[in-house]
Amino acid sequence: MDTFDTIRNRTSYRGKYKSTPIPKTDLIKILEAGILAPSGCNKQTTSFIAVDDTELLDELKSLIIPPIAETAPAFILVLTQKIFAYRDKCFNIQDYSAAIENMLLAIKALGYESCWYEGHITDDDDIAGKIAKHMNIPDEYKVVCILPVGKPDEETRQTAKKPFESRAWFNGFGKSM
Amino acid sequence: MDTFDTIRNRTSYRGKYKSTPIPKTDLIKILEAGILAPSGCNKQTTSFIAVDDTELLDELKSLIIPPIAETAPAFILVLTQKIFAYRDKCFNIQDYSAAIENMLLAIKALGYESCWYEGHITDDDDIAGKIAKHMNIPDEYKVVCILPVGKPDEETRQTAKKPFESRAWFNGFGKSM
Repeated sequence: MDTFDTIRNRTSYRGKYKSTPIPKTDLIKILEAGILAPSGCNKQTTSFIAVDDTELLDELKSLIIPPIAETAPAFILVLTQKIFAYRDKCFNIQDYSAAIENMLLAIKALGYESCWYEGHITDDDDIAGKIAKHMNIPDEYKVVCILPVGKPDEETRQTAKKPFESRAWFNGFGKSM
Repeated sequence: MDTFDTIRNRTSYRGKYKSTPIPKTDLIKILEAGILAPSGCNKQTTSFIAVDDTELLDELKSLIIPPIAETAPAFILVLTQKIFAYRDKCFNIQDYSAAIENMLLAIKALGYESCWYEGHITDDDDIAGKIAKHMNIPDEYKVVCILPVGKPDEETRQTAKKPFESRAWFNGFGKSM
């Protein structure tokens, strides 16, 4: 799929997924897209766990209350490490966000849907922490996001955006072309 | 350009640029890619200023010491606002990072090169603040990143990445497929 079409058609999909399993080759392509994202001073602070084992997937889903993407046949867990780029500067949020965006585009380009679930699992009830504990993820890695992956079973819809001229300008603040 | 080719071929380009101006239509496509990125609770905290006016561009470049992308015919300044998504939660870093990644891919897909310059301008010497002051950008917007845009005048090269199996796993931490 053309890059601009992918960027234009990506949506935050919160509907039901078809149960069709995701071929491992597609999961690998999605993870590779994540790995290929840039990172501050190339510290590569982001890691990934694809989950498509139905038993493990069900266990993880049971930890997520209220539930998200209950019908998705696969999850990608995004993990981050707080590695300093230099002095006290750490760009791990930037790093994992760029990796997530790359993966969302890869998911779309392969004909699947997804949604960036971060706030839902990193809120005060610490669902992400429960997932990390259940999976014995070492303390230096923090789970920050879940991306479901699957074929949509409902219609997708675009999120409304503010008009171009209220967010993008030329040669001065608030200046149109 | 195909989505996966774009993701694969994107690099952090720090070489010289050709002086060829960037057509406005291309700058618009790049900015649109930024606008189309997802944002936490759709708060759309990221804004953009494309700078291709040679006088203004030279003024901005003179504020950047040590210099970056001195030969680039255009800059895109990335601006962020600290808008809360809910309670005290703000996802503006995630928002602008996803927007930057979308723009880096758009830039590559159009045949240009770029590089994510954030730490260089947001360090203690606050180059970003000097740019904001020079351009009378309101206090509630913070300049966080510069993306140069231009045709490369030197060879691009890929950044070395850790092997797949040290960052991406299946159904368990550290587990290969």
